[in-house]
Amino acid sequence: MKVNVGIVGFGVIGSGVVNLLQQYSSLLKQRSGVQIELQRIVDVDIERVRDVAVDRKLLLTDYRNVVNDPHIDIVIELVGGTNVAFDIVSQALTAGKHVVTANKALLCARGPELFSLAREKQRELRFEASVAGGIPIIKAITESLAADRILTLYGIVNGTTNFILTRMIEESWSFESALKRAQELGFAEADPTLDVNGGDAQHKLHILSTVAFDTIPPPGSIYREGIEGIQLQDVLYAKELGYVIKLLAIGKLEGGSVSLRVHPTLIPSRCSLASVKNEFNAVMLESEFLGQSQFVGRGAGARPTATAVVADIVDISTGMLQNKEFNASRYSTVSQYPILPAGDIRSRFYLRLATEERAGILAKVTKILSDEDISISAITQEEGTVERPIPIVILTRLAREENVRRAVAAIDQMSFTREPTVVLHVEDISL
Amino acid sequence: MKVNVGIVGFGVIGSGVVNLLQQYSSLLKQRSGVQIELQRIVDVDIERVRDVAVDRKLLLTDYRNVVNDPHIDIVIELVGGTNVAFDIVSQALTAGKHVVTANKALLCARGPELFSLAREKQRELRFEASVAGGIPIIKAITESLAADRILTLYGIVNGTTNFILTRMIEESWSFESALKRAQELGFAEADPTLDVNGGDAQHKLHILSTVAFDTIPPPGSIYREGIEGIQLQDVLYAKELGYVIKLLAIGKLEGGSVSLRVHPTLIPSRCSLASVKNEFNAVMLESEFLGQSQFVGRGAGARPTATAVVADIVDISTGMLQNKEFNASRYSTVSQYPILPAGDIRSRFYLRLATEERAGILAKVTKILSDEDISISAITQEEGTVERPIPIVILTRLAREENVRRAVAAIDQMSFTREPTVVLHVEDISL
Repeated sequence: MKVNVGIVGFGVIGSGVVNLLQQYSSLLKQRSGVQIELQRIVDVDIERVRDVAVDRKLLLTDYRNVVNDPHIDIVIELVGGTNVAFDIVSQALTAGKHVVTANKALLCARGPELFSLAREKQRELRFEASVAGGIPIIKAITESLAADRILTLYGIVNGTTNFILTRMIEESWSFESALKRAQELGFAEADPTLDVNGGDAQHKLHILSTVAFDTIPPPGSIYREGIEGIQLQDVLYAKELGYVIKLLAIGKLEGGSVSLRVHPTLIPSRCSLASVKNEFNAVMLESEFLGQSQFVGRGAGARPTATAVVADIVDISTGMLQNKEFNASRYSTVSQYPILPAGDIRSRFYLRLATEERAGILAKVTKILSDEDISISAITQEEGTVERPIPIVILTRLAREENVRRAVAAIDQMSFTREPTVVLHVEDISL
Repeated sequence: MKVNVGIVGFGVIGSGVVNLLQQYSSLLKQRSGVQIELQRIVDVDIERVRDVAVDRKLLLTDYRNVVNDPHIDIVIELVGGTNVAFDIVSQALTAGKHVVTANKALLCARGPELFSLAREKQRELRFEASVAGGIPIIKAITESLAADRILTLYGIVNGTTNFILTRMIEESWSFESALKRAQELGFAEADPTLDVNGGDAQHKLHILSTVAFDTIPPPGSIYREGIEGIQLQDVLYAKELGYVIKLLAIGKLEGGSVSLRVHPTLIPSRCSLASVKNEFNAVMLESEFLGQSQFVGRGAGARPTATAVVADIVDISTGMLQNKEFNASRYSTVSQYPILPAGDIRSRFYLRLATEERAGILAKVTKILSDEDISISAITQEEGTVERPIPIVILTRLAREENVRRAVAAIDQMSFTREPTVVLHVEDISL
């Protein structure tokens, strides 16, 4: 069966999709009976030379020529942003086309509207490429674990920050040097803000929450902390304690609520997520019936994203081949659970204080912690010098986020404190 | 939509499936619109008390009451073996039912016949549970990577042997102690032969070859070596060299042929497969377009297997819900590639010689190796004692299997050799 596809957005990802289709469509046809025909490619700039050669006749500048073309079965939205992209996706669905998108921001901003429209029009809206393209995580959650309840989700879902942290851990580079190297290698954008501040991971966690917990996070409900402030000395202290620092997207179903957060996290050096290095992504799930499972692969970039886009095209096409009705049930448009307020999250913590050399400091610090119901599981204090404040490194047991913030504010008010206390989360991951 | 299911085989796995359906079928219905109704359970012994409570009216002793029941949509074959199981599956397909099986041995022995029948009858024959139940690897390969060419597959697909090797690596236990512990914990059968000799992994690699390489291995074409002979001292030497020993199922597409083998393998301690411990399974893929990806989860046992069985039921049901035609295209019934003869496989090797203390031995050994075109990448020789032969540990560069076997036979013929040389494969895995 022949399936006609139109791509809107001919940038890096669009070129990757074209490249994949040019190389593998005959293999795909032989395996699945689906023949994908690339009919149109739309971009505002159709003059620029790309990495792939395409017939000039395919190129157009107005997306309406794709969404209104009765011969097109599936529209691939790769323009990004939330305005034109919304128009493209909604018009395509309205015109009776299936849609595949890699657009995280669009789904976070207007997912429920678009999925309601898809359901109404009985068309598929697929988005595997929006989270960790090289990992079929949306499919794994919505198909393989359809009959199981996901309790915990840990994701390394941003390759740029994972590359930077890997360099800091393995080569003892500073954050700045590692970022510079990531930019040279093309793993980081010229403006890396959304990567390093955790915003990109936050978008991905939003989407994962809708599929894993059937819960749409309201705006501002995902706690976020980036890696800009991570100092090499904390990476090294963590290593001594048997931990590595990773930027994790974390979702947990606990006590009838879902907690969602993105932050740098100390995880045990010997757990398998710790071995996910450089630009690789990973998602670890713990589900009620099955237990733990983990998926590792490349996340962003042309090839992983194109792989996910084409996998979605194949799924839709297999359904079309079989006269299937579509119900777009992957993305929840109503929420099953409330979101736990960030202050109520319970976690273990790493605290690094910088204090003066003075008697009785430890007694005061431990009193402040104990008043906030925070127990200490490990503590080390090194000798200081005149130039350098004394570092006191503390690992806590499980404590409430709000209590820890309050205790740290109190410590930072004390006269012996020379620098703001560093606060990082700790997760004990066993797999 | 209601889907009627009949289970044949009410042992550990069957009880797991019943347990999962009892606990999660309402969650599943809410998510996917599919209501799975367990209509019949067949077993030769319906008196024995199981872990799950079922209505006695569901229990029957003759499978024909399921395969001939016009109300049953999907038959779950969980009896194992290749005789009765073949009858059940073939009769169910002939009667127009979809079939889900966890039966590796059956697929290896008679897969092409059964899949041809399924295609002829336009019914699904699904088998996700036959390989690493807790990992949706069949789905990942046949759906997510349908438009990509898999080049390399590394699998830790037997939990028993992975548990044993983990104990040997981490606790320096002997093979015998580790096996005993695995049996106490229920990770190994009373008769563990098929696990420890690699036979179970060989079955799984057979199935993976049909989906990953579209190639059905002829009988005897998968090289196999178990872990019975692994000595603690080799585990310890490997560790010193920066490697751990894992039982790997390996498939590689190289030079127009597929090489397939199961053997204990030295892999770098820092690669992510090395961190897959105890009873966990993992599959690492390298595909031409996407690159590396890896999947980790529990392999055998009631819950992982039941999870995979129910995922297959859900997939089939979603298709039924949508009036889909079935084409059973997952399992190749014709081969795309020839199998590379075992002797032609190229690999790196670990060799441990046990020799007398005598001048000129190294010269003789290195001459034998070099005559067979085998280069040495690392060599260590410890001091021996009167009681203990001198161990010489060699890591080779890439060499042809047959040449290595010939060289080792020559070394073992030499008068200075006190014990047969230990030969293990080495794979440099980068992820």
